[in-house]
Amino acid sequence: MVKDITQPATQRQIAVGDIRKTHTNELDEIARYRRLTNYLVVAQIYLRDNVLLQEPLKPEHIKDRLLGHWGTSPGINLVYAHLNRLIKQNNLDMFLVTGPGHGAPANLANLYLEGTLNKYYPALTFDKKGLHTFVRNFSWPGGFPSHLYPGVPGTIHEGGELGYALATAFGAAMDNPDLVVACIVGDGEAETGPTATAWHSYKFINPVESGAVLPILHLNGYKISNPTIYGTMEDDELLSLFTGYGYKVQFVEGGEDADLDAQLYGAMDWGYQEIRAIQQAARSGQRIEKPKWPLIILRTPKGMTAPAEMDGEPLVGSYRSHQVPITDPQSNPEHLKLLEQWLRSYRVEELIDEQGRPRQELLNLCPIGDQRMGSNPHTYGGKIARDLDLPPIQDFAAQEDRGMPTRRGGNNVSAMEQVALYLREVIKRNPHLFRIFSPDELQSNKLGAVLDVKPREYEWPVPPHNEKVAAQGGQVIEVLSEHDCEAWLQGYILTGRHGLFPSYEAFLNIIVSMTDQFAKFLKLSKEFAWRLPVPSLNYLETSTLWRQEHNGFSHQNPGFINSILNKKAAVARVYLPPDANCLVSTMDHCLQSEDKVNLVIANKQRMPQWLSMDEAIAHCRAGASIWPWASTDNGVDPDIVLVGIGDNTTLEVMAAAQILRDELPELRIRVVNVTDLFILQENTEHPHGLDQQMFEALFTPDRPVIINFHGYPSAVEQLLFGRPNLGRISINGYREEGTTTTPFDMNVRNGTSRYQIVIQAIRKAAAHNPKVAALANARVSDYEYRLEAHRKYIEDHGSDPREIVEWQWQA
Amino acid sequence: MVKDITQPATQRQIAVGDIRKTHTNELDEIARYRRLTNYLVVAQIYLRDNVLLQEPLKPEHIKDRLLGHWGTSPGINLVYAHLNRLIKQNNLDMFLVTGPGHGAPANLANLYLEGTLNKYYPALTFDKKGLHTFVRNFSWPGGFPSHLYPGVPGTIHEGGELGYALATAFGAAMDNPDLVVACIVGDGEAETGPTATAWHSYKFINPVESGAVLPILHLNGYKISNPTIYGTMEDDELLSLFTGYGYKVQFVEGGEDADLDAQLYGAMDWGYQEIRAIQQAARSGQRIEKPKWPLIILRTPKGMTAPAEMDGEPLVGSYRSHQVPITDPQSNPEHLKLLEQWLRSYRVEELIDEQGRPRQELLNLCPIGDQRMGSNPHTYGGKIARDLDLPPIQDFAAQEDRGMPTRRGGNNVSAMEQVALYLREVIKRNPHLFRIFSPDELQSNKLGAVLDVKPREYEWPVPPHNEKVAAQGGQVIEVLSEHDCEAWLQGYILTGRHGLFPSYEAFLNIIVSMTDQFAKFLKLSKEFAWRLPVPSLNYLETSTLWRQEHNGFSHQNPGFINSILNKKAAVARVYLPPDANCLVSTMDHCLQSEDKVNLVIANKQRMPQWLSMDEAIAHCRAGASIWPWASTDNGVDPDIVLVGIGDNTTLEVMAAAQILRDELPELRIRVVNVTDLFILQENTEHPHGLDQQMFEALFTPDRPVIINFHGYPSAVEQLLFGRPNLGRISINGYREEGTTTTPFDMNVRNGTSRYQIVIQAIRKAAAHNPKVAALANARVSDYEYRLEAHRKYIEDHGSDPREIVEWQWQA
Repeated sequence: MVKDITQPATQRQIAVGDIRKTHTNELDEIARYRRLTNYLVVAQIYLRDNVLLQEPLKPEHIKDRLLGHWGTSPGINLVYAHLNRLIKQNNLDMFLVTGPGHGAPANLANLYLEGTLNKYYPALTFDKKGLHTFVRNFSWPGGFPSHLYPGVPGTIHEGGELGYALATAFGAAMDNPDLVVACIVGDGEAETGPTATAWHSYKFINPVESGAVLPILHLNGYKISNPTIYGTMEDDELLSLFTGYGYKVQFVEGGEDADLDAQLYGAMDWGYQEIRAIQQAARSGQRIEKPKWPLIILRTPKGMTAPAEMDGEPLVGSYRSHQVPITDPQSNPEHLKLLEQWLRSYRVEELIDEQGRPRQELLNLCPIGDQRMGSNPHTYGGKIARDLDLPPIQDFAAQEDRGMPTRRGGNNVSAMEQVALYLREVIKRNPHLFRIFSPDELQSNKLGAVLDVKPREYEWPVPPHNEKVAAQGGQVIEVLSEHDCEAWLQGYILTGRHGLFPSYEAFLNIIVSMTDQFAKFLKLSKEFAWRLPVPSLNYLETSTLWRQEHNGFSHQNPGFINSILNKKAAVARVYLPPDANCLVSTMDHCLQSEDKVNLVIANKQRMPQWLSMDEAIAHCRAGASIWPWASTDNGVDPDIVLVGIGDNTTLEVMAAAQILRDELPELRIRVVNVTDLFILQENTEHPHGLDQQMFEALFTPDRPVIINFHGYPSAVEQLLFGRPNLGRISINGYREEGTTTTPFDMNVRNGTSRYQIVIQAIRKAAAHNPKVAALANARVSDYEYRLEAHRKYIEDHGSDPREIVEWQWQA
Repeated sequence: MVKDITQPATQRQIAVGDIRKTHTNELDEIARYRRLTNYLVVAQIYLRDNVLLQEPLKPEHIKDRLLGHWGTSPGINLVYAHLNRLIKQNNLDMFLVTGPGHGAPANLANLYLEGTLNKYYPALTFDKKGLHTFVRNFSWPGGFPSHLYPGVPGTIHEGGELGYALATAFGAAMDNPDLVVACIVGDGEAETGPTATAWHSYKFINPVESGAVLPILHLNGYKISNPTIYGTMEDDELLSLFTGYGYKVQFVEGGEDADLDAQLYGAMDWGYQEIRAIQQAARSGQRIEKPKWPLIILRTPKGMTAPAEMDGEPLVGSYRSHQVPITDPQSNPEHLKLLEQWLRSYRVEELIDEQGRPRQELLNLCPIGDQRMGSNPHTYGGKIARDLDLPPIQDFAAQEDRGMPTRRGGNNVSAMEQVALYLREVIKRNPHLFRIFSPDELQSNKLGAVLDVKPREYEWPVPPHNEKVAAQGGQVIEVLSEHDCEAWLQGYILTGRHGLFPSYEAFLNIIVSMTDQFAKFLKLSKEFAWRLPVPSLNYLETSTLWRQEHNGFSHQNPGFINSILNKKAAVARVYLPPDANCLVSTMDHCLQSEDKVNLVIANKQRMPQWLSMDEAIAHCRAGASIWPWASTDNGVDPDIVLVGIGDNTTLEVMAAAQILRDELPELRIRVVNVTDLFILQENTEHPHGLDQQMFEALFTPDRPVIINFHGYPSAVEQLLFGRPNLGRISINGYREEGTTTTPFDMNVRNGTSRYQIVIQAIRKAAAHNPKVAALANARVSDYEYRLEAHRKYIEDHGSDPREIVEWQWQA
């Protein structure tokens, strides 16, 4: 291990004059190229015609609706041009994650010139017609939207909701040792919490097995209408902050007169060399301890190259250039004139010929083939994705239960411990292709076995009493930031790899909005045939609310289910496997699936096992089944249907079923288990939805149904909406009642306990079955009494009564 | 303005030896006090009896279920003791926000000793019985949960979900100039994004009008099973990082042998003096530019004072001390012995007398009265809250519409511009009592008028082209961090003040989990009579999805509604006022409400106005009304009921109603508007829910109903679940279809447009009304043709057809 004793760089170390002198022509060409991309941005925002300014600008050339964001675009164009230069000169494998996704017209301008747009949109040719289509289609219904989105080649991140660009870039760089992901972070985005912690990501990047991120913090000083925190920080503050984060900082600062091209030219070379120096040291066995990775801070006036002012108010270097700086050129002749001056200031006639073809010397500045950032193969995750090598799941069946249906309900197994054995094998078979990102809970979630193959990756030296943490590359990362985990995983799978995000159930809510955005990305990706399916985004929720009785109310929150239900049906999946075998089978399914957001929910404590692996596979394939061995209706005409969805709630259903079977044999009960939540929805709404005939085959057409559901009843309510005869269905679930208490008391508080189910069942069945009706009142009081006695015991002893703790299914 | 030229402090500046010499007795007493609080933590985790160790420890003295977190507790006890000393010596107005809320047994130990527990829990006396109850009741059903919660006096933050302690503390300090809020941030929490950006909060704190936060970053090096990022950073890295953030840093480091007491004694004095120096300079007109506020970094071994090791594995200074270090003392005699040694190491007999009364000299170390941190009046927000001085809302009626029902549907007004006038007056009348926290969107959201009274508060010097931003104290803060906004607001209202969080609709999803936690806090607060109601948490969602057609799909997300629906009925409210007057009336209601989470949703664009202010008040009070002037059923027996919920979707309902009235007079239509979403739910489920009779009075018992809803249909589906005869109800809403397009096309894509409603209505009514049935097919094709023609126009022109843009309600 080598100590890094170099000093943080500052902008004074770049010999701007020398660079200018040595590379005069190249810099001039880059400046011309930027003139062209800047022109193309302005044109996209404003013009629907006369796109080469071959006649004087008239109101009818202007779009009716002016949509777009100018302010950030010249900065993106500056960066893009210099990244192109760096790629060409060094034969780089590089692409760009653009944090300010509303700068899409800048990305589009560059993608147009490098020819990747034409590859996927053949109409966007290098002629007048193609140029006209390109310019007009921006922010036009059916054309390119105002923000980056999956229809833009080379895009793995929309940048619509700010905060996640940087960590997404790091996720893409993992396990791609030769890749450099450039990432523009705007000073608006920099204010977000997720970005503020994502700067630490390098502490998790092993320079041998992974590539690098070259962050470019672009400070233009203004958000929509405010100054920015980072924009108001002076260089010494920024230097101190980012040195603390672990970076070497290079400033590139000034307006168009500050020779930004020469500065950035030097900074890019510096950044690239710093990266390769760290990597080469590590790859030659001379790892640098706490290496300082390069960061470029680019401080330029917002909206530079626009008119300095309008109506006496500043445009450049002001929030007024954030979106459309000149808002009314169609109706205001003065402003039309100003816009024309602005457009003509780029002298487009020097950049594009009369036939609408950009000058060849400018096109020559673009990399070619897969080196074009819009064509970088990593950004086409679906094309390069390889299937995982998955082990046969029969090897991971809960052991004693295999083929022994007589032992149903015995053999207490932790579903998490079981699936961890499977995942350990997945890790072993798929180095550099499968990662687990977790918020510091693998051991707590009983998934510790996954660390047997490789310890958790962490690059900074750790104190002595740590276990299974090392700076030796790794497939498992833990950090107490759900935002990092989510963004890293998104970056990883969108570049064609596979992953899993295990979490405490309650705390996936922290990244609900990120999942929303990712589901939108997947939904839109399906609209482009050239975006082949990527591996699914897999969540494994455990430490579920029913067994967070020790941590209490703040740790009890199943709301993430509800948020998944609002995603498009083609994307969303929610699974609640009732036991370990079902969990292993479900996980195996999810790891083979594509273009989905899979939410899998299971408990980590030891629980009864219900199904052999063969049964589990069949059950999971069906999504829901009658469990005949737990039913007393012989498959026909039950008085009542008891439905378990979720493992803990299924346990209470099973206990209720056993009580009813033993103590009220007059009652014909059917026990159904649902493992795929979407079977509840109509088949017209979701591909997994059951048609009404299948639905009634499980739940009968008309008998009372008691659903004991893992999460908020609202989730089941919305799925069932539209089914006929809903009045017969009662839904128990988490009613937002909890504290630090006992497991059984959690059920009692929320009305999901066995005794409450039994009481419900008797009351409901009494209407159908006269024998039950005759007994109902007496039996209900009996069970209410037993429930009350349990409550009392819990208060007195601080624990559950023995008959609850030791309850076992009796076949 | 004065420049701060002092250097960042380091630990070397504290003369520990001198402090030890000068304050020997005091430090010794503090050490004894800490022995007692540490003992009480261990006792709470383990003991149900023999709490004074007056007999040898036996298995039956041990709780059956061992729940609690030891690791962070000795650090909390250390900080608490020294804060007590600082308070007493300086007569401070101070309380503590404890980030690691699972350290509750430490807080409880201190609260017990200072007597505030006894104030609210009279059984917790200073005698054997009280001590026994105190110790046993921790993590016991019906007793104190394992984490902080509203039942713990002096608590405004649970610390269950990590990330928000620091910003919450800043919110509490705002507008409380004499208050110092101490805040412990654990190194686990420090990894979260929200904390990482919250360090910038001082840039928004005006030292004249607001108090201060004294952050204590407590690094014990380990999370549940991992090292921590900040724990692995060396002092120079931390110094650089936090200097960049804008702090002076003081390190307090070492184990029990490092004279932590003397170090922290000095650090506390230093921190307090730094705070007062900055405040006094500012308050005497000599403001320091970019003042460096003090930060204490406390680096101590995790779980210190526990046994060094167990079974050869380290406990102290290792993740193994995170929760219950000795897990099985009941069943393992060796471990029981180790636990007894541990407990006896505190020599409790020297600290508590035989009657169970803590020694008076130790009790004397606690502040008294309201200076006790558990009794600090700011932490009882409900007790000290004052009502807002609210202006009469008639003054803010949309002008031309007042009393002119004939002009219904005309007079296009932006609801946001209108409510901004009202809010401006609220700001003016309520300095230091009402704040707005917004993620940089006030101007964009057309709420800019609120800046007329006071500009946005920002302390760092801003560049010249800014407007309405100044370091002069303020009631409005903007930052591009929803996490900061939410936590600041929570801290502000839990200390008895009022506030509003306006946001783009899509981006409140970023803080869903924080709202979840806050709603839990409110729900539990209601269980304690001594926690009087606090002002409500008010959200104003605008830039709603239907008019984010320019920003596109990433900005279209109404999911926050669904998350509010899962909160307890006593807490959750969702309002969708259909026009500006209804919005002003709703806002007025929300600002007077208590203990609620109010979500208000309205568009910012100019839209038709429907109700006079008197009508609006009546409509909002009812929550939903029939609009007879838009209906053709004369109040009885409609063929179809059209329901608008949300302003944009109501607009389409009104347009559909007008088309049907004019073009299909055979059809009897009723138009209903819902402004309070919860009226849909049964009255047994929500206090605003309508009973079935009232429900049928609006929606009829059996006629087809078309609901045109602002958000995901799932929200309405779950609310209606349980109502009879649901098959007649169709729900249109956002079906997750969007892009950059036109406003009308957004409706078309999601099936909420006027023509689609008309087609739906005709099809549904045909079943009831033979006259309609006769016409149905021809009419449906006609409207389908018109819809298609519109689609075509939009594609060709990039804008909506004139008859859509210029549509006006014709009375």
